Parts: sequence; C-alpha cells; structure tokens
Amino acid sequence: MAPSPGSILLSVTGFDPAVWRDEIERAAPGRTVVTEPDGPVDASIHYAVVWKQRPGILNRLPNLKAIFSIGAGVDHIFADPDVPDVPIVRVVADDLTERMSEYVVWQVLDHHRKGPRYRRQQAEKIWHEDRMQPAARDVTVGILGLGVLGLDAARKLAALGFEVAGWSRTAKKIEGVATFAGDDGLDGFLAISDIVVCLLPLTPKTKGILSKPLFAKMKRRGPLGPAVLINAGRGDLQNEADILAALENGWLGAASLDVFQAEPLPETSPLWTHPRVTITPHAAATSVPAALIPPMIAQIESHERGEPLTNLVDRDAGY
Amino acid sequence: MAPSPGSILLSVTGFDPAVWRDEIERAAPGRTVVTEPDGPVDASIHYAVVWKQRPGILNRLPNLKAIFSIGAGVDHIFADPDVPDVPIVRVVADDLTERMSEYVVWQVLDHHRKGPRYRRQQAEKIWHEDRMQPAARDVTVGILGLGVLGLDAARKLAALGFEVAGWSRTAKKIEGVATFAGDDGLDGFLAISDIVVCLLPLTPKTKGILSKPLFAKMKRRGPLGPAVLINAGRGDLQNEADILAALENGWLGAASLDVFQAEPLPETSPLWTHPRVTITPHAAATSVPAALIPPMIAQIESHERGEPLTNLVDRDAGY
Ligand SMILES: NC(=O)c1ccc[n+]([C@@H]2O[C@H](COP(=O)([O-])OP(=O)(O)OC[C@H]3O[C@@H](n4cnc5c(N)ncnc54)[C@H](OP(=O)(O)O)[C@@H]3O)[C@@H](O)[C@H]2O)c1
Ligand SMILES: NC(=O)c1ccc[n+]([C@@H]2O[C@H](COP(=O)([O-])OP(=O)(O)OC[C@H]3O[C@@H](n4cnc5c(N)ncnc54)[C@H](OP(=O)(O)O)[C@@H]3O)[C@@H](O)[C@H]2O)c1
Repeated sequence: MAPSPGSILLSVTGFDPAVWRDEIERAAPGRTVVTEPDGPVDASIHYAVVWKQRPGILNRLPNLKAIFSIGAGVDHIFADPDVPDVPIVRVVADDLTERMSEYVVWQVLDHHRKGPRYRRQQAEKIWHEDRMQPAARDVTVGILGLGVLGLDAARKLAALGFEVAGWSRTAKKIEGVATFAGDDGLDGFLAISDIVVCLLPLTPKTKGILSKPLFAKMKRRGPLGPAVLINAGRGDLQNEADILAALENGWLGAASLDVFQAEPLPETSPLWTHPRVTITPHAAATSVPAALIPPMIAQIESHERGEPLTNLVDRDAGY
Repeated sequence: MAPSPGSILLSVTGFDPAVWRDEIERAAPGRTVVTEPDGPVDASIHYAVVWKQRPGILNRLPNLKAIFSIGAGVDHIFADPDVPDVPIVRVVADDLTERMSEYVVWQVLDHHRKGPRYRRQQAEKIWHEDRMQPAARDVTVGILGLGVLGLDAARKLAALGFEVAGWSRTAKKIEGVATFAGDDGLDGFLAISDIVVCLLPLTPKTKGILSKPLFAKMKRRGPLGPAVLINAGRGDLQNEADILAALENGWLGAASLDVFQAEPLPETSPLWTHPRVTITPHAAATSVPAALIPPMIAQIESHERGEPLTNLVDRDAGY
C-alpha cells in the first residue's frame, strides 16, 4: 500500500478561504486539507498554502516540506516572526502577470490621456480638447522593479509606443528598456521618468521607499507636468503623508494607488477625496484560485517525486 | 528660370488655421500659402490642404492637382457637393495611428477594469474588490473597421491578451483576429463581441450604423454584462437617441464616445450626464501639424517630379 499523501495546511487571514479550499480539494482529490493543525504539533501536514498565515502556526509542523504563497509577494509570510526554515514558493503565473499589466497600462494611459481632466470637463459639460496632448513616445514610464511583473508591464508599455525605463537590485540589459540598478542607479532613473510605476516587493530594503527623499528627485516638468506615481506593489512601500505633501508642493502631479499602509484604507484617509488620487482596493492583480492552485498542486506532486521546486524565495533578500 | 512652384490652398473651418499655415510655410519655404483664392478663378493654386473646406472653394481652381485631407477621414471633404475630380489624399501617419490606439486601449481597459465602478466607489469611500473581474482573455473586443487604425488597435489589444474580432467591407485574414466582412458578416461579429470599437469611416453606407438594429444584435450577457460601445470614428455613424435608449433597456452596458452628431456636443445632450457614458471632445487622435505636414509636402514634391500619390481615397466607396 502506498503511503497516504501528506496533508496540506491552508492558512489565510483577511478573506474567506472557502474557494481556495474547494479548489485545492478539486485539484488534489486524494489529499486532506487542514485549516487548523491537529494539536500542538501536527506531523501529518507536509505543505502549507498561505496568505498572511496566523503567526506561529507553521512552527508546529515538524514534517513541513515547503510553504506556498497565495500571491506574488511574500512579505505577508515574513510578517510572522516564526517561519520555519523550509523552501518558500511564490506565485509566478501568466494569469496574475497579465492582470497586473492590464492595471499598469490602464493607469498609465489614464494619466497620459488625461482621464481625470476629461472626466472633470464632462461633469461640467465643457467641450475642450487639450491640444498639448503628448504622444506616447514623448513620455517615459519608469518601472521600479523589473521582476516578473515589471518586465511584462515594460514590454506592453513599449509596444504602445512609450519610452520605458526600469530599476532593479541587480543590473540588467533589456532590449528597449533604459535600465538602472541599485541605490546608485535610482537618481538617474528618476531623472528621466515622467510616470513612475512601483512593482517592487516589500522587503526591509524597500520599505517606505516611496517617500519624501524619492519624491524630491522626481521630474518636476515633464510633458505631463510633475511626475505621476502608480503604486501596485505593497502599501508599506509608501509613506502616505509624504504622498499627500508631494501632491501639494508640486513634486507629484497625480497618483494611482492600489495598495495602502492600512487596508482597507480607513475612511479618515484624505487620499479618498484627493482630486488627483485614483484609488483601487488592492485589485490590480487578483489571485484567482482556479488559475493558481492547479500549478501549485502540480509542484507539490513533482516535489514528492523528487523534482526541485521552482520560483523559490531568497530568504536573505526577502523576495 | 525654373517655374515657380504651385501655390497651396489651406482651407479649414472649425479651428484656427494659423499653426497649419506656419507648418506648411516651414516645410515648403519657397511656396505661397493661400487661404482665399484670388478672385472667382485662381490658376495659381496646384494643391489644397483642407479640413471641411468652405463649400465650392475647390471648384474655383482650374489647375488643382490634388486635395490633401488634414485627417484620416475624408467625409468632411464630401460634405461639399462641388469637389472637383482630382485625387484626394488622406492622412496615414504613425503619429495619428499610435494616438488612436492609445485612446482605444485606454477606453477598452477602462471598461474592462471597471473604471467607472471604482471611481464611484472611491467617491463613496467604499473599499470593495470586484471578485468577478474577468481576465483579458475572457473578453472579446470587436473592431468595426479594420483599416489603418482598426488594424493597429487590434494588434495592440491582442498583445494585452484580449480576444479580438474585426469587421470590414472586404474579407481579410489577420493572424490572431477573428475576421468578418460585409453585411452578411455583421451578425456573427456582434454575437461574439463584448466591447465594440467603431473605427469606420463615415460614408453613405456606414452613416447611422450605430443605431437600434445593430444594438439589438449585441451581446446581452458577456463577462462585463451587456456589450460596451466605443465610437472614435465619426459622430454621424451613431444615432444618439438610440444609444440612450439602448443604455436604458439593457442592450448596451456603457459607451465611450469621442465623436458626436453635433460637435461641440450641445449642453442639452443627456449624454453629458449619463452615468455610463464617457465623453471626450473629438480628442481620440488629434492631427498634429508638425507630424502631418512634412510628409504631405514631401508627397507634393514627389508628385511634381512625376511620382504617384499614395493613400488615395476611393471616391466611389467614399473613403
Ligand atoms: N497589488 C496587487 O494586486 C499585487 C499583485 C501581485 C503582486 N504584487 C506585488 O508586486 C511585487 C512584484 O512582483 P514580481 O512577481 O514582479 O516580483 P519579482 O519577480 O521578485 O521582482 C521583484 C523586482 O524588484 C526588484 N527589487 C527587489 N528589491 C530591490 C531593491 N532593494 N532595489 C531595487 N530593486 C529591487 C528585483 O530586482 P532583481 O531583478 O535585481 O532581483 C526585481 O526586479 C510583489 O512582491 C507584490 O508585492 C501586487
Ligand atoms: N476621433 C478621432 O480623433 C479620429 C481620428 C482619426 C480618424 N478618425 C476616423 O477613423 C476612421 C478610420 O480611419 P482609418 O485610417 O482606419 O481608415 P481606413 O484605413 O480607410 O479603414 C477603414 C476601414 O473601414 C472599413 N469599412 C469601410 N466601409 C465599410 C462598410 N460599408 N462595411 C464594413 N466595413 C467598412 C474598411 O473596409 P476595407 O478594409 O474592406 O476597405 C476598412 O477596414 C476615419 O475615416 C475617421 O473617420 C477619427
């Protein structure tokens, strides 16, 4: 008799795990899905699928072989100080990547083509074409983070005719993208970017990067006016008080924010009503269970056959 | 002594011709630019550059060799019943094409990614992610008109992951696009299109095509709800009363209109305030003098050397 396959722990907070549970059970019919370990130590669980797992829960699993993140980012995993030393696998999936690029292109075009202005004009029944509309080739979109998501967005923006720049930790050479790397490369990147799109992971190095010192180095006079910020990475990459101040003192022309320091964004936040801020509720690239779980289960099965895991997180780098 | 080169008539109505005049004078320094023919018959004028020229003006030019349209469409030329039988050249220019594709992708994404809904939520400080967000691959964008503009938009939408369909007068085969042609092909096209983008020219055959009979055949239940209409062709392609009725009876989910039966759109139009209508003031793809005049002058010069004109209008087809 073959040994029964290891159980899977599903530990998520912040949303209902039901659809994820259903999807795992559909994709791995022979396997037990556990949402709460059995007693102080649970030896039956071999794999964990998590989003902001309950702190300490993973440390009670002596046979845990790997942790799978429901999402491209893994900062939610490290919010737990007791993460056992097993491989962590993050999401890399066309479905997620394509959704993020949709969001980025949408928001870039909304600023480039002056959506807020034309909507204001419509509300006032004003028929007036902005004859200063630049062409895409006159506008540089700079992307902070040239990983799976940043790279796909860069390619799609370039295909629309935008000039594209990018910034990453390690140096890169990408056809059609002006690349910059590391702390030394940041100023040069900011000096040419008319629209700055943040697709960085949240790590100890990137936390709070979108704040006053960075805004102070952004372009003040581009074809769209002061530089525009689009953040679809994580809320803790940004300092919201500094964003509001930069919108006031002319360092930032406008901002599209999908993520916030506190989510849901509190009703008291002045961002909600700022006329040059576009808010979406952490919806840029939703994790779709039907798209993400089957490849996750396939990875578990191949791992059990002795094959290596892919899309592993570098624990030292934090992403 | 070489004969002095023919003069150029510049006849535009609806906007100030000054920048066009300056641009022609810059590109063709040796040539006279005329805005009003000299007397009842003016033999000095060899070429005309026009936008909605004053009716009858072209008929007073016995030596007219060609008419150049400031714009991709030429319906504005035929609004004049007395257009002499000389070649008509329309605009085909990357600058214009790219601007139109920016507009189309922007508006498609704004509907696909539920811009109106999220803006309403922001106004009410509601944090709520729409978990029914389809992926681009679940949405078919159908393009009425697969000419220079429709084809470029089709390619850029396909690169973002959308399914793309297209409809033209003559049958076409385009990689990655489901093509339909002629009156017989229209129903099949409408049956699969979740978002219908109109980039048709205005001709006797296409006038009023965006009206009740067409809306009645649109998809009622797609991944975005009832089908969405985006018209960036010409206002007289649409019947605005029918658009409003179709928005009410559930045939149309939303509309983005850049062009109108009367422009500027009258303040009394209910389109201005309809919550599911997005209005831009005929700004989808502006004709930029610096981008369009130099190639026009180059065509004039090569025509004078005996080379054939390109991008000619088929007078019978009307485009
Ligand atoms: N809002 C949403 O709905 C949503 C959805 C999915 C993901 N996200 C966010 O998007 C982030 C990016 O995802 P991804 O899949 O593209 O990640 P990824 O493939 O790991 O790419 C991360 C990129 O950031 C760069 N980077 C990391 N630390 C840096 C530093 N200190 N300085 C400069 N560059 C640095 C990396 O540089 P190297 O290339 O040199 O390593 C890499 O280019 C996720 O971490 C997540 O937070 C948000
Ligand atoms: N809103 C703006 O700012 C703006 C700016 C520029 C242009 N425009 C409008 O965009 C229009 C399209 O420009 P374009 O350069 O793409 O024109 P184009 O290259 O001439 O293409 C026209 C397309 O429409 C199709 N078509 C024409 N009559 C048809 C009919 N009766 N039934 C089915 N299909 C028909 C043609 O079919 P075939 O391929 O079979 O010939 C062709 O695919 C212009 O005419 C202008 O009105 C608007």
